[in-house]
Amino acid sequence: MNTPRTVLTIAGSDSGGGAGIQADIKTISAMGCYATSAITAITVQNTLGVQAVHLVPPDIVRKQIEAVLSDIGADAVKTGMLGSAEAVREVGIALRNHRVQTLVLDPLMYSTSGHPLTDQNAIDAICTHLIPLATLITPNIPEAEILLDGTKLTAQSDLPEAARQLASKYGVSVLIKAGHLPNPTLTDYLYDITARETVPLPSQRVDTRNTHGTGCTLASAIAAALAKGETLTHAVQSAKKYLAAAINAGAELNIGHGHGPVCHFYELCK
Amino acid sequence: MNTPRTVLTIAGSDSGGGAGIQADIKTISAMGCYATSAITAITVQNTLGVQAVHLVPPDIVRKQIEAVLSDIGADAVKTGMLGSAEAVREVGIALRNHRVQTLVLDPLMYSTSGHPLTDQNAIDAICTHLIPLATLITPNIPEAEILLDGTKLTAQSDLPEAARQLASKYGVSVLIKAGHLPNPTLTDYLYDITARETVPLPSQRVDTRNTHGTGCTLASAIAAALAKGETLTHAVQSAKKYLAAAINAGAELNIGHGHGPVCHFYELCK
Repeated sequence: MNTPRTVLTIAGSDSGGGAGIQADIKTISAMGCYATSAITAITVQNTLGVQAVHLVPPDIVRKQIEAVLSDIGADAVKTGMLGSAEAVREVGIALRNHRVQTLVLDPLMYSTSGHPLTDQNAIDAICTHLIPLATLITPNIPEAEILLDGTKLTAQSDLPEAARQLASKYGVSVLIKAGHLPNPTLTDYLYDITARETVPLPSQRVDTRNTHGTGCTLASAIAAALAKGETLTHAVQSAKKYLAAAINAGAELNIGHGHGPVCHFYELCK
Repeated sequence: MNTPRTVLTIAGSDSGGGAGIQADIKTISAMGCYATSAITAITVQNTLGVQAVHLVPPDIVRKQIEAVLSDIGADAVKTGMLGSAEAVREVGIALRNHRVQTLVLDPLMYSTSGHPLTDQNAIDAICTHLIPLATLITPNIPEAEILLDGTKLTAQSDLPEAARQLASKYGVSVLIKAGHLPNPTLTDYLYDITARETVPLPSQRVDTRNTHGTGCTLASAIAAALAKGETLTHAVQSAKKYLAAAINAGAELNIGHGHGPVCHFYELCK
């Protein structure tokens, strides 16, 4: 058996198991890579929402990253909820020190249930210290609006230009996710800053409330595909295919009383 | 697709991904169950050892458990590293309040690399508040010696009687693990307190240094098998079979520079 590629997730913990590092570990594993993790926050959470948050001290966040990168390394890194501006800076220092080459940054600002997960200072720190290190950022529409200083994005047709504007403003490739639109067909747009091309990525909306953790899952799946050596466009396509299968497999499951998780291990359940 | 059975792990986080809640989540998932988690401590750890520990406040530990049990429930619970005596008491209160029926308790005292993970007050609290709620405890030899007030266990032939003594002293079924003995064939002993029988469980030692997280993995696998409705003896046998396959699949992998992890997802890598 060959040693698998490694992916480090830096994110919050979701006790309910559907989002955060739990979703990331499940996704990275299901994609055939070895998952490591640096926990930034403990959220008290289930499918009904977030009840409390305990932020991990920033030096412990940095030390977790250094412990992983100095021993195991990481073929790709994914970041999600990071907590405070100070934690963001520590993450940036650790990733820079270890010359991380492949970073998928999910600019997580709110949970699926609307709980704010990142304050304005932390958002500013992400823009200053982390986006310059990123290979790809993966905002949904509300996050893209904040990153574009409040520009409203209300229609599918707004997204390709928004992706280009984000890429131009932040100097990074951008995947803008259409999930917040009401359309039956949702087209995400990838702007690949190296190839200078806009790639439309359509998918069908699945009628389910089990969508908790889809953002975490997609970003982790992209990181895993990049870790395996796929090109950016191919990695995003592989990740969307994985997520669609996981959403479909989880659409009818009854886990919890609110927004349930996707089925990350549909391959094992066939 | 049927909704999977659910298993809650209450344990520390291992940033290196091979032990703690990471090993538990991987194991529970690989066994076909849905994994939730309550994190008690963040360990800064890799395959070379534990560099730092941040204990999670006891009320946040309890709230994570309550968030999971009040919404998702748990067909089985597994506990590992719990941190302070106060955290142990909070875990006991939460498990009692929610009338948890199936609890596998790994009385974790030291990491594979010898780092102490539980102080004497916490060990006393485990004996007082948690073992009375447990279905099974899974000590290795050093842990069994401490639980038997210092009785030395030096040979394979000491183990069946030690299992019976532990069961008698604490009123719980016991799996005593032989891994610390030098023998090529290692026989664990299960004493099933309900059936009043001692079951020998032999296995071959695998020549590998990749044994990080084997204790966590075994206890989680037993919890998953119990969650699926297996009898205690059958669940322990299923879990040992899973662990042996994961150790064999991981024996040649190169993850980190010390004691590497087992390969939890050997089924996905075939």
